[in-house]
Amino acid sequence: MTGRLHLEDLHEGQRFVSAGRTLTAEEIIAFARDYDPQPFHTDEAAAAGSFFGGLVASGWHTAAVTMRLLTESLPFAGGVIGAGGDLSWPGPTRPGDALHVETTVEKVTPSRSRPDRGMASLRIETRNQRGEIAQLFRVNVIAFRRPAP
Amino acid sequence: MTGRLHLEDLHEGQRFVSAGRTLTAEEIIAFARDYDPQPFHTDEAAAAGSFFGGLVASGWHTAAVTMRLLTESLPFAGGVIGAGGDLSWPGPTRPGDALHVETTVEKVTPSRSRPDRGMASLRIETRNQRGEIAQLFRVNVIAFRRPAP
Repeated sequence: MTGRLHLEDLHEGQRFVSAGRTLTAEEIIAFARDYDPQPFHTDEAAAAGSFFGGLVASGWHTAAVTMRLLTESLPFAGGVIGAGGDLSWPGPTRPGDALHVETTVEKVTPSRSRPDRGMASLRIETRNQRGEIAQLFRVNVIAFRRPAP
Repeated sequence: MTGRLHLEDLHEGQRFVSAGRTLTAEEIIAFARDYDPQPFHTDEAAAAGSFFGGLVASGWHTAAVTMRLLTESLPFAGGVIGAGGDLSWPGPTRPGDALHVETTVEKVTPSRSRPDRGMASLRIETRNQRGEIAQLFRVNVIAFRRPAP
């Protein structure tokens, strides 16, 4: 709500890069115990013999951390509000991985029916310290027009 | 990993319904403080004057709770493992809403290259106590074939 960017301030190709955040095994296990208690997310020994060959973060943990980094790096007036999009996890996130988020504005579309707002189409890449994409989210978010003075 | 359903056990139209889970304002605020600290997720008074007209759960909280309910209701052998999909939140989740998850198998596709597995295309609806869809996730998950005896 404290963001400063309105619809008029956005343009195709605009980029925003977040700070980094390292995920520890403890955090990965704690999140998974609450929300995704599968052995490859909660138990290092069991994870070693699983599909992933070792402990990996729940994709929803990667998504939640991504959102946290977005709230710190996308200063949209009125907040970051999306109704959904295309979400994928091209590779797993493992303990010690340092994630950051690179957001690109792909399109800006004023609303035809609501003069006070529009839509920003975003490509939100969550990358690890090796530059690999841990999560890709393509989403339309609301962009409010600057109120008349 | 303790699930019993293999590729051979899945068929189009198969349905799985989870138990319910009620989200309290306290849980909504606690999740949002960690992962989505925007005023409409963390502060009832500020939320009243926001886009949502009141406190709402972060979509990622709805997603995380959905995953928890899935781990309890989709007994796939080897776990529930997806690489991403189409995610949307048709409506907000508010304090006191009781969510449950209805999963439908839309398609079962044996892998051409890997004889030990295939893919199940799932439609995962998260509904509240009024039957409204709070989240829709369409995703392909791995289904392992039953090992030869």
